[in-house]
Amino acid sequence: MSDRDETRDTDRHLIGAGQVQGTTVYSLAGKQLGSIKDVMIDKASGRIAYAVLSFGGFLGFGDRYHPLPWEKLRYDTELGGYIVDVDPESLEGAPSFTDEAPNPWLDPAFGDAVSGYYRRVAV
Amino acid sequence: MSDRDETRDTDRHLIGAGQVQGTTVYSLAGKQLGSIKDVMIDKASGRIAYAVLSFGGFLGFGDRYHPLPWEKLRYDTELGGYIVDVDPESLEGAPSFTDEAPNPWLDPAFGDAVSGYYRRVAV
Repeated sequence: MSDRDETRDTDRHLIGAGQVQGTTVYSLAGKQLGSIKDVMIDKASGRIAYAVLSFGGFLGFGDRYHPLPWEKLRYDTELGGYIVDVDPESLEGAPSFTDEAPNPWLDPAFGDAVSGYYRRVAV
Repeated sequence: MSDRDETRDTDRHLIGAGQVQGTTVYSLAGKQLGSIKDVMIDKASGRIAYAVLSFGGFLGFGDRYHPLPWEKLRYDTELGGYIVDVDPESLEGAPSFTDEAPNPWLDPAFGDAVSGYYRRVAV
């Protein structure tokens, strides 16, 4: 969509999930890591609980997805993408899943495992 | 995606925005109204503020979009879609926009207009 960049994520209060999906994710050092595949909504609170990051390439099959607590991401207007406030080694070892596996979110313990992991790792 | 229906919106705690997008929306009387185009995230709170409903057909150009406070939608497992807890006449008269117009969310007053409207209308 041609208008995506100009409206992507500026100082607006609101952003569409459709504009977050596909946005590039960078490390603290500014290295391109991947992109945001989706955001997970906590239905009870209406809050975004996790962003699901894809590190396996933008259009590849068999991608590996890493859910990340939403508050670990911050938008950088210069980069035009999100910076992950977690060191890359901690991201590598975090709970993740693939397209081949059953949907991990069907198990409520999965979200808890993600949250618990990022509470424990150094940032 | 073949696995969308089985995982769509059950009694899970979490749902992906990608699974909400495209889900059918029904009136209180069970009439099919359209579908959810996107959800708008309040960046400060991380909360879903609005669902953007498309009443103009599933793949049509020139659709008209109606943002609705997220709490006005509830998922009905039997219908497999969301029920809008607002009478159809109030929906018709609500703030809306089209693909042809500039992105209305760039104006912070737009969200306020939507919220104010649905506070005033009878439900």
